[in-house]
Parts: sequence; structure tokens; C-alpha cells
Amino acid sequence: MAAIQAPENPEENPRVKAVFDDIRATRGSDFVNNIWRYLAFDPALLERTWAEVKEVMATPSALDPLTKEMLYLAVSIINNCEYCVHSHSAGARAKGMTPEMHGELLSIVSLAAKTNHLSNALQVPVDDVFKIPDV
Amino acid sequence: MAAIQAPENPEENPRVKAVFDDIRATRGSDFVNNIWRYLAFDPALLERTWAEVKEVMATPSALDPLTKEMLYLAVSIINNCEYCVHSHSAGARAKGMTPEMHGELLSIVSLAAKTNHLSNALQVPVDDVFKIPDV
Amino acid sequence: MAAIQAPENPEENPRVKAVFDDIRATRGSDFVNNIWRYLAFDPALLERTWAEVKEVMATPSALDPLTKEMLYLAVSIINNCEYCVHSHSAGARAKGMTPEMHGELLSIVSLAAKTNHLSNALQVPVDDVFKIPDV
Amino acid sequence: MAAIQAPENPEENPRVKAVFDDIRATRGSDFVNNIWRYLAFDPALLERTWAEVKEVMATPSALDPLTKEMLYLAVSIINNCEYCVHSHSAGARAKGMTPEMHGELLSIVSLAAKTNHLSNALQVPVDDVFKIPDV
Amino acid sequence: MAAIQAPENPEENPRVKAVFDDIRATRGSDFVNNIWRYLAFDPALLERTWAEVKEVMATPSALDPLTKEMLYLAVSIINNCEYCVHSHSAGARAKGMTPEMHGELLSIVSLAAKTNHLSNALQVPVDDVFKIPDV
Amino acid sequence: MAAIQAPENPEENPRVKAVFDDIRATRGSDFVNNIWRYLAFDPALLERTWAEVKEVMATPSALDPLTKEMLYLAVSIINNCEYCVHSHSAGARAKGMTPEMHGELLSIVSLAAKTNHLSNALQVPVDDVFKIPDV
Repeated sequence: MAAIQAPENPEENPRVKAVFDDIRATRGSDFVNNIWRYLAFDPALLERTWAEVKEVMATPSALDPLTKEMLYLAVSIINNCEYCVHSHSAGARAKGMTPEMHGELLSIVSLAAKTNHLSNALQVPVDDVFKIPDV
Repeated sequence: MAAIQAPENPEENPRVKAVFDDIRATRGSDFVNNIWRYLAFDPALLERTWAEVKEVMATPSALDPLTKEMLYLAVSIINNCEYCVHSHSAGARAKGMTPEMHGELLSIVSLAAKTNHLSNALQVPVDDVFKIPDV
Repeated sequence: MAAIQAPENPEENPRVKAVFDDIRATRGSDFVNNIWRYLAFDPALLERTWAEVKEVMATPSALDPLTKEMLYLAVSIINNCEYCVHSHSAGARAKGMTPEMHGELLSIVSLAAKTNHLSNALQVPVDDVFKIPDV
Repeated sequence: MAAIQAPENPEENPRVKAVFDDIRATRGSDFVNNIWRYLAFDPALLERTWAEVKEVMATPSALDPLTKEMLYLAVSIINNCEYCVHSHSAGARAKGMTPEMHGELLSIVSLAAKTNHLSNALQVPVDDVFKIPDV
Repeated sequence: MAAIQAPENPEENPRVKAVFDDIRATRGSDFVNNIWRYLAFDPALLERTWAEVKEVMATPSALDPLTKEMLYLAVSIINNCEYCVHSHSAGARAKGMTPEMHGELLSIVSLAAKTNHLSNALQVPVDDVFKIPDV
Repeated sequence: MAAIQAPENPEENPRVKAVFDDIRATRGSDFVNNIWRYLAFDPALLERTWAEVKEVMATPSALDPLTKEMLYLAVSIINNCEYCVHSHSAGARAKGMTPEMHGELLSIVSLAAKTNHLSNALQVPVDDVFKIPDV
């Protein structure tokens, strides 16, 4: 159950259609998932969001696609985004994440959350060796 | 400024000394950073935390050490742990993270935070293709 | 599915009835939404919470009712409260939030989340011009 | 370095003076800590906040004062409030929290954070036995 | 709807069976709740998580079992873990949390969240009396 | 103390210079604050972030500039971004936020955090009247 009414025929709006066409072309698939169908209620937000996703996630770069998708999933878990946990778990699997890697990702995410809170609870002072001088 | 008084001579406690010795041996370095010096106030918590860090982060596994460290850093950013952001930025650099990779990591983390909140704001329903049947 | 059993006939308790009567009178409506029906399990908590909502949100003040409701919605999105996202999206619409304003609110909330995490990731030092001397 | 200018002589405002007097009387101490000195910039917010703290934390109730203070500290850790971690660590120590109890509190908080994120990552369905029927 | 496929017959794996047997023995009950059934997809993660839960939560210690469970619940609320809120509300009730105590816990958790955010919004400087010198 | 080394002469890079020039022109001021000086380590991230800030925050739209800035500040408080709380408190003051409005903003943010956590703690079911049918 969504918190807004998604447009029923989003592609009647040419700005939306252009984005959906680019999603399909970029992914080589006819499927446009729900986040884009709901963002279509605001074409400018849809355009801006897709442009950023395409540039950051779908352009060859220093990090490989699986690492990028796993980083996305790790953040989605910590932010507790139900939709994103589902879509990026599926996305990482599609890019080659094995159950073993998934288990490791979860081990790291939950360990990091643990030591993050321990550090915050103790207000541990930063070691001098980690300090970078301000400009 | 910490929220507890760290023990002044932590290695007088043999349980603490054993952990610190293992940290030094595992890392091949004499340096024991502050999080361990503060956790030493509770030897059982220190032992448990180090054992988990060693097993998850310092044991060869399906994910390479740099990917693991970047996942740890991504979580630390979202949880806003100042100490951890400093220590794991340094840790990732030591394992080979270039400025270009660091920039990409930040691009992904901040983009994910953005779409996480958009999905939560819209309460986007999960697409059927992402659904995994319960046991 | 709630985590507590809400009272079946909450208004049998006169303290609860007094709060519900005031909610109806303040809003000019017979409808009492679920958060109040569940909080009724602890009349003191119900009274305190409603008194604060009434004072902060339903009393004429420097900020107009729509701005106040949009601020409430922005916080609810970041805290990922499903119930609150639904109720305050509806509340903001009832107070005049157009789809265009809703899209802007989401653009701001998601952009802020993005730059918040970038600042935290970089641990950007506060500029001198922003500093306010301590008393 | 604060984000607002605290009033230099807050007790010149009689509403602020009344709150500060009540803080001193309730605690049997002349010391008024900074959170109250900064909240004094908005007397209504100061009054409301102190009234709630007094009712919830300083009134005899089903939970003993140490348990209440430790719950407050646990929340402050997860919300990463630097000021609150310091003040409520001190507060809990003043109410009898030993280093051993502090270590246990940290063990529980960090373990809970870990399993919270594991559950969210897996989107574990709620067991039937935990389900409470809606009214 | 989970984000992974839980193993259908988890106890065919002897490492999983050993953990489930220990859960049943420790709790004196045949019931193994879903978090363990889903974590079974990664036996090492399952073993590590259960060992920590058993040591921290099920071993007699300085804090009584009810206080420990309420601390766990408080963290789960702030981290907004739906599964954990249900399971630890039930767990705390089973250990003796009355509705009155539950109401108090909620009063404290929500008050703490409120003052945490006020402190962060004002960036209140830590009082000298709360400061503990670094080692 | 930052977590990266900001470039010493960022405007030697023409992409960075173009962004800084546009920041100065858009704001009618010579001052470029630190977030931009640190983001300059990754020109693509700098360009993308500034372009979005300019489009969302500095372009006339349905919401007035003060409302937009206050929404930004509210999110920054909840995400506990120290840098952002300072810069956007200053920004909102520059756009006309009075101390009275600031106090109201804080009252709303902290009240919302409180009821968000109460709703999550109770797992309050969404009222039918708030439900919007899926497409």
C-alpha cells in the first residue's frame, strides 16, 4: 500500500516515457519496476533520480557492478528500506552474488553496526594516525 | 573525549593482553588502536568483539579484503560513527582504495540514501518478481 | 498487526474518553485514528502525547499549519515510520499540499539525506562563519 | 560549539527561572546542565521538555530509577547523541550503574543492533505466535 | 515476505541442527522462531549469532533478565525492526513486563528520542562535569 | 578534522572552478563553504551534487525558500549531521527564520521523532482512510 497514488498511464507523459524508454534500453529488458512507476508522479524528480542512478550504477567505472550493488544493498539494510532490500538483494543476485557472498555481506553489515554503536557509546577518541590535517 | 575511563595499563589484565597480542600478530603491527583500548574496560566484550572482527574481516573468504572494508565503511557512514569513518577510511586506503574508488563509494552511499528515503516516503509496494515465498 | 493489544472499548476509561472528546472537538470530526486507539492502553502516555500534539500542531503560531505538517512528514520519512508517513501525507494533503509541493518535499528530503551522508562521510569541518560562541 | 546562541542570563526570564528552580529542587543540586541552558532560548519548549522529563524520569513508578536511566542511555547511543551519551552515562553511574553493568548494557545494545539489521536484511516474517489481533 | 529463501529442511545440516538443539535446550521449548530459521542459510553466521545471544542474554549476570530484555526492545524500537519489536515485546512480556512497565518503557524511549534530537539540533556542548579525560 | 585530504588549490581543476564560479554567481557572494571544498576531491560528484542543490533549492518553485531551508534543516537534525545542522541553521536564519520559528521547528521535529517511535513501538496498523489503492 503506497502513500501516493501512482499515475495510471504514466507513459502518456512524454518526459516519463523518455525515462522509461531509457530504463528499458539501459537494462535490455521490458520490465520497469515500481519505484520508477511511483516516482512518475513528479517527472522532474523521476528524471533527476534516473539520471543519477544511470551515471553512478550503470556506467563502467573503477568499481565492478557487483561491488557497487552490494554497497547499495548494505546501505539499504541500514536505512531499513523494505522495498530497496528486496530490489537490491535481487539485483545483487542477478549480478553474481552467491549465497556465500550474501552471508558475508550480512556478517559485515551486522558487525559494523555493532562496532559503530560501541564506538558511539564509548565516544572513542580518534587515533592520531587516522587524523588528516584540515586545509 | 570519551564517555568512559579507559584502563590506564590494560595489558596488566591477562585476558586483555591475549587479545592485544592477537591483534598485533594478526595485523603484523605494534599499533593497537583506541577502540580496543577502550573496550578493554570489559574483557569479555573485548574478546567477543575481536573474535568476530577477526573471523569476519581477517579470514580469507568469498569477498576480497578491500570489498569487505568498503562495505564496513559504507555502514559506518550511514550510522554516522565518527571514529569508524576515520578508522575505516584509513583501513580501506591501506587495502588499496584509490581516491577514485572512494569517490564512487560516496556516490553510491549517498545515492542509496536518497532512493531509500524516496521509497520509504512513497511506501512503494514490492514488485511481484522480487518476492520470495515464505517457507 | 500491532505489537500490543489495543483496548476494545477504550472510552470506558474516563481519562481516555476525555482525550478522545478533545481530539474530536479540536479537529471538528468524529474520526479518531489508530495511533490514539493504541496509545489508550496507557492513559498517562495518551494524555501527555495528545497535549503536546495539540499545543505544537493545533495552536496558531509563527509557522502556518501546512508548513508544520510538512516538517512532521519530512521527519517521519527519515525515521521510516510507516504509519506516520501514511497519516501525515494524508494530513498534509488535507491542509493544502499539492502533488507539486509533495514532489518538492520529497526532492528536498532525499537531497538532504544525500548531502548529510556526504558531509558525515567526509567529516567536513564546520566553517568559521557558522560558529556560534558558547556561553 | 552550539548551533544557537544560548541566552546569557536565562533566569532574567521568569518562566526560565521557574523551570531552573524546579530542576534544582527536584535534583537537590545547584547544577543546571547545558541542555536546559540552551533550551532556555524557547521558554515554552523548555517548560514542556522539563515537565515531561520530570514526570517520566523523576516520579516513582513501576520501573526503578537505574533501569529507567539505562533505557535512556541505550536510546541515546542508538540515536548517536554525543551530549546525551555523556550526560546519561554520568546519570546512570550516579544512580548505581557499575562498570560491569555498563559493559552488559553495551553488550546488549550492540547485539540488538546486530540482530535488528540481520532481521531487516532478511525481512524475516513475524512468527504467528507473536501476532496480536487488530481491534 | 522474506528477502532470501530460507532452507526448507534446515536441520539436515548438522551445524544448523546443533544450534537449533541448543536453542531448544536453553529455552526449554520446542519452538524455534523464524529469525533462526532464516539465518540457517549461513551456518557460520547462525552459530556466531546464537552463541552471542546465549552468552549475553541467557547467562546469569549483573542485570536481571527482564531489564536485559527491555533494553533489547528499546534498541529494536529505535532501529525500527518490525520483527524484533514483535519478538522482544513478546519476550519481555514472558519475562514479567506488565502493561504498566511497557507504557513506561515507551514513555522513556520516546522522550529520549525527543531530547536526543533537541540536543543534536542545538549541538549542545558537553558540560565539564561530564568530561572524562582521555588516557 | 576531515576524513579525506581536501585539494589545496581546488580551482586549478577547471571543472571545480566552473562549479565554484556558479556557486558564487548563484549566491551573489565570494564565500564557498567547506562542503564544496571537500567534495572537490571528486569533480564528478561535486558537479552532480551542486547541480541538484541548485535545481532543488535555488530555483523558484511551489515552496518558498524559507520553507525549503527549514525542511532541509529538519532532515539534517534527524540524520545528525553536525556540519549540516550548523550550515542549514545559519542558512535558515539568513532566509528569515526567527528564533520563534526555530523553536517551533525544534518542537515539531522532536515531537515527530517521539510519535514516530511510539507508532513503530506499537506497530500501529494504518487506518483504512489513509490507504491509497496500488495501481
